[in-house]
Amino acid sequence: MTKRIAILTGGGDCPGLNAVIRGVVKAAVIGRGWEVIGIEDGFDGFLHPEKCRVLGLDDVRGILPRGGTILGTTNRGNPFCFPIMREGKVELVDVSDEVISRIERLGLSALVVVGGDGSLKIALELMRRGVPIVGVPKTIDNDLLETDVTFGYNTALETATEALDKLHSTAESHHRVMVLEVMGRYAGWIALESGIAGGADVILIPEIPYDIDKVRAAIVERGRRGRRFSVIVAAEGAFPRGGDRVVQEPAGGKSVVERLGGVGEQLSRELGGVLEMDIRVTVLGHLQRGGSPSTFDRCLGSRFGVKAVELIEIGAFGQMACLKGRHITSVPIEDAVRSLNLIDPAGEMVRHAEALGIMLGR
Amino acid sequence: MTKRIAILTGGGDCPGLNAVIRGVVKAAVIGRGWEVIGIEDGFDGFLHPEKCRVLGLDDVRGILPRGGTILGTTNRGNPFCFPIMREGKVELVDVSDEVISRIERLGLSALVVVGGDGSLKIALELMRRGVPIVGVPKTIDNDLLETDVTFGYNTALETATEALDKLHSTAESHHRVMVLEVMGRYAGWIALESGIAGGADVILIPEIPYDIDKVRAAIVERGRRGRRFSVIVAAEGAFPRGGDRVVQEPAGGKSVVERLGGVGEQLSRELGGVLEMDIRVTVLGHLQRGGSPSTFDRCLGSRFGVKAVELIEIGAFGQMACLKGRHITSVPIEDAVRSLNLIDPAGEMVRHAEALGIMLGR
Amino acid sequence: MTKRIAILTGGGDCPGLNAVIRGVVKAAVIGRGWEVIGIEDGFDGFLHPEKCRVLGLDDVRGILPRGGTILGTTNRGNPFCFPIMREGKVELVDVSDEVISRIERLGLSALVVVGGDGSLKIALELMRRGVPIVGVPKTIDNDLLETDVTFGYNTALETATEALDKLHSTAESHHRVMVLEVMGRYAGWIALESGIAGGADVILIPEIPYDIDKVRAAIVERGRRGRRFSVIVAAEGAFPRGGDRVVQEPAGGKSVVERLGGVGEQLSRELGGVLEMDIRVTVLGHLQRGGSPSTFDRCLGSRFGVKAVELIEIGAFGQMACLKGRHITSVPIEDAVRSLNLIDPAGEMVRHAEALGIMLGR
Amino acid sequence: MTKRIAILTGGGDCPGLNAVIRGVVKAAVIGRGWEVIGIEDGFDGFLHPEKCRVLGLDDVRGILPRGGTILGTTNRGNPFCFPIMREGKVELVDVSDEVISRIERLGLSALVVVGGDGSLKIALELMRRGVPIVGVPKTIDNDLLETDVTFGYNTALETATEALDKLHSTAESHHRVMVLEVMGRYAGWIALESGIAGGADVILIPEIPYDIDKVRAAIVERGRRGRRFSVIVAAEGAFPRGGDRVVQEPAGGKSVVERLGGVGEQLSRELGGVLEMDIRVTVLGHLQRGGSPSTFDRCLGSRFGVKAVELIEIGAFGQMACLKGRHITSVPIEDAVRSLNLIDPAGEMVRHAEALGIMLGR
Repeated sequence: MTKRIAILTGGGDCPGLNAVIRGVVKAAVIGRGWEVIGIEDGFDGFLHPEKCRVLGLDDVRGILPRGGTILGTTNRGNPFCFPIMREGKVELVDVSDEVISRIERLGLSALVVVGGDGSLKIALELMRRGVPIVGVPKTIDNDLLETDVTFGYNTALETATEALDKLHSTAESHHRVMVLEVMGRYAGWIALESGIAGGADVILIPEIPYDIDKVRAAIVERGRRGRRFSVIVAAEGAFPRGGDRVVQEPAGGKSVVERLGGVGEQLSRELGGVLEMDIRVTVLGHLQRGGSPSTFDRCLGSRFGVKAVELIEIGAFGQMACLKGRHITSVPIEDAVRSLNLIDPAGEMVRHAEALGIMLGR
Repeated sequence: MTKRIAILTGGGDCPGLNAVIRGVVKAAVIGRGWEVIGIEDGFDGFLHPEKCRVLGLDDVRGILPRGGTILGTTNRGNPFCFPIMREGKVELVDVSDEVISRIERLGLSALVVVGGDGSLKIALELMRRGVPIVGVPKTIDNDLLETDVTFGYNTALETATEALDKLHSTAESHHRVMVLEVMGRYAGWIALESGIAGGADVILIPEIPYDIDKVRAAIVERGRRGRRFSVIVAAEGAFPRGGDRVVQEPAGGKSVVERLGGVGEQLSRELGGVLEMDIRVTVLGHLQRGGSPSTFDRCLGSRFGVKAVELIEIGAFGQMACLKGRHITSVPIEDAVRSLNLIDPAGEMVRHAEALGIMLGR
Repeated sequence: MTKRIAILTGGGDCPGLNAVIRGVVKAAVIGRGWEVIGIEDGFDGFLHPEKCRVLGLDDVRGILPRGGTILGTTNRGNPFCFPIMREGKVELVDVSDEVISRIERLGLSALVVVGGDGSLKIALELMRRGVPIVGVPKTIDNDLLETDVTFGYNTALETATEALDKLHSTAESHHRVMVLEVMGRYAGWIALESGIAGGADVILIPEIPYDIDKVRAAIVERGRRGRRFSVIVAAEGAFPRGGDRVVQEPAGGKSVVERLGGVGEQLSRELGGVLEMDIRVTVLGHLQRGGSPSTFDRCLGSRFGVKAVELIEIGAFGQMACLKGRHITSVPIEDAVRSLNLIDPAGEMVRHAEALGIMLGR
Repeated sequence: MTKRIAILTGGGDCPGLNAVIRGVVKAAVIGRGWEVIGIEDGFDGFLHPEKCRVLGLDDVRGILPRGGTILGTTNRGNPFCFPIMREGKVELVDVSDEVISRIERLGLSALVVVGGDGSLKIALELMRRGVPIVGVPKTIDNDLLETDVTFGYNTALETATEALDKLHSTAESHHRVMVLEVMGRYAGWIALESGIAGGADVILIPEIPYDIDKVRAAIVERGRRGRRFSVIVAAEGAFPRGGDRVVQEPAGGKSVVERLGGVGEQLSRELGGVLEMDIRVTVLGHLQRGGSPSTFDRCLGSRFGVKAVELIEIGAFGQMACLKGRHITSVPIEDAVRSLNLIDPAGEMVRHAEALGIMLGR
């Protein structure tokens, strides 16, 4: 039986989103003859009829190697807590009735939500209100549970490692301490894995509050062994032992990071007074979200797209596509968002990093 | 207790070998105070005292981003079947006694063998003769069992996908059929995964003998839908239904591929007569083995190196480091080499490719 | 006064063609309010009304980083010598009247021809028939006179050098001779410049017939100095001293290269018998024409596009945009195609290569 | 006659420095049998005997693809104005006698100074004191006169353009204004050329003080035409019309940039109040100095190295190697440093950018 399904992308952009969109459209249209509606700018698109448009094969042609999302996305589209201007002020309003009503009027058999922690939690709430949803996990930071990894992370790692390769030559030529600040507000995966791959000397992650005296001592000790430079990778959420921890606000809100200029600048101040070497900070920022997705991410995104259609076909609503070992399978969305996937400070990957001689701030 | 261990790399070179070597040296020297001997040119190095030299921290400095192996490697170093020139002719001789005697004289507590199917089988034979060995899996082709994936494959995929991206623009500008021949004598993983990521129209793999009439029909059908070009990825081991299959000779020997110019040329001949479009073949060849390893491969290689040292520490000889989901663990070497890891023609990945509209030769 | 102009791209595809097209459209439409007609598939497009379509700003959006040409191209579109099927056979017919008549009916004030030696010679003939033309030089091989360099060459060089970097690690790990065959039928610029940049040991170019004995001796001598591998770059048009030279047929025809498998294979045979090392050949082929253009090529292509519009504005027909030092200027098309830009065997660049210790086959 | 020459690299690091060093060593040692002394950390190395060491062929092996400089460099090594700690305070002292005396004791026939404006001015002063010097131009910013371009700039451009490609997808997906701050304190070449290549909408350079109202209007106008995002490239030295200009201090000193957080942050504040779109700033910083040099830079650097040796051979002291069109030639060092190579606001390249529809802040 033919169906009409919809797809939206929510939260920050991420390399591989277009692969998912293309995968959903190809699997739905070619093999099954379904119709796919693309919802623009996340859940926000349901509030604007002109943002709900048919996605055909021609629309997804050539998008596989392109970063970003052809559907647009936004970090501000929570329908249960939607920002609306009233009398010059922003009010947060529940517009979920309107969203659900639009979904009914569109005659959707299912909605594919491609998003991270935030978007998937919204999806769960809409499901409780009767919307048939399947999820596709999306996170640059790799902080989602119940999938070995998701698309975008691999590309972000390449960007971070390439930056480390570049900073290495400057560090070495100038006998400097180079600090690279990478993404990772709560989970330090990008810092840890790019740091291992990029030959970092120090890696600082939110899961292990750092002892600045020990960081400094490690750099000084390197100097004693004739290594006149050091490379530090710090996740943006890294913080000193006893220092202010990043606080997470309620869903949809923003995190409070009350540091002047980020962890990179903080490290520069903390180390600057006591080391004789120059310290330079690079904040990688949005570069990590952009660019043509890597092979891994294109392939994983495409397969997640196909899987989402397969889940809809068998009526497995509430499930999220995921990768386990060599297999694409699925898990309940609610299992994936029950907490974040953090690095275990006593776990295997940290142990391996330390065995490689990397200093982890402790 | 301090130990002296050795490491060698066997078979074809592969991005990430240097990461493994560096990981073994760092984990052995920094944390444990062991001594590491590097054996040059695979097992062959045991026959030449000058090819067994101490590897210190200075020797592995800066090698993480470099392709290849600082130890050298060879495809011709089977000590049970070793090529020796006698009276102008090559004879295959069993030199394993000499190898084992060298290992004893070096006072090795353990030997780390980094290699694929061939080298690991040699390792098993040496183990039966009493040599304490741990294995690290190495294969560009991803054809080893018992590990989700191994280092080198990810980098090779990037090279193949980048080539596909390049060929796409020529195919489209000139309305041509572009054929890319990639590695994969028995297993078509590189072709399948790079083909999905690179937006190939046809993917031919050894696991699915192709029907040339159906391949041609698929290209003609694309033309009817207004797509005046096609991109085909073919694993080097792909062959037509009813055609000659690649035959594997005994261990150490070479495979017999009795086709003139490889599968790419064969396809060009088979399609050339019947299609009106130009057909051009590119053989990617050794480019797939080279280059700076990707983040994934540098990280995996480094961790396999650490794991090898951990396995030696607990006396887990006969084990091979492997990746399962998010974890580095180990399996018996003999389990890994009992057969090749081939693509299941009825499996999930092939199904996903076909759902994406890709033609798989059948 | 508003004008209607047309643009076509001829010959082999080349990174940067889209930048030129976009440059012409932007400069013509935004600043001048002209209309631009895109002619598809080179001069061939004039024979098919449906291949002559208006190019607006929306058509050139997002094409800057893309390889190839959105207009399509062909190597077989000489209107003075056009292949037409008659009674099952290909006849070469003069269809120039039809082309000129179409140009008149389209009411074109000018035609921008983006092409190499072949397309620009056709342009000259059309000019003699009264068609107002400005040229934009296009050649992967850098073999056009009267411009320091043109777009596409820089990107091709990057592809060739990256390949050399990859082959280096395999050469070194396996103690092999790796041969890379690159483009350059008459001019060896790609081989020479990528060889210098990629640290090649031997570079063979069409301008210097090689002495195979001296090539072999150079490799043997390297071995004596402890370098157990060599990397050779050979232009496809390189040939042995006293051997068959590549012969150029009349305009529009194909060159006769009567060697089995190209210069790479020939070198492999010539060296294989006498060296003890393995020799492996990689033919880079079409990969050199593809891919996202480099910054240099995007910028140069864009500026050539603007320049072409400026030339039309002042009525400087018969001129070709070119780069001289830091300046974009123009020269008569006929000066640019009077002969090929070859490497001077006694010139500065060859001298520099030899000073770097590179063997040039003599 | 055999000679002993020395080479040093001064100022900020730059991709291609190692190519120059290798070129000098190869040309001096292989063809001429000279001896080369590498001076570490710029002119500073002359004050420390252990920093003056022989550079042989083995020392330059494998360095061609590597960023940075194996000799080390520093921004603080002016011997006429050298920072020395005395009684807890930094004093600037003239140590040129010591440097000259070391040069005499080393028995140097010539010194190759690879550097930018600052290092070459020091070289001129030393020449006046009798030191035989040849120069090799080095500047990431392309702000040196008398050479079409120098090594490092091309690689920096690639890094900036790649960043723009990445930011484009985020800008488009999120409907944002993305600002990229690139190098260029006095000269806006990197901003202008990468902006053209990366399809920027607005480019701000030091040579054209920007009118923030017009910048804002251009972005708003784009929105009216349906383009819901904009990409701005700003050279670090760009400043608003009537705003504070960056002031250059005497040679060896630092420039005074008294803006909080750079031009990117300033633009964010200036635009933030009046646009409804999100604005995000990325500061590319040191990433532009790092990484493997591009083909162009490796080749140019290598040839400059050879040229320096040729200049020494003929006794052309006081000359600097340079590129003019297709030729490597030389000019007097004093001509190259008489002023900076700035962009002409009424020149060809600015005109081309504006013809492409790019807004230049005016």
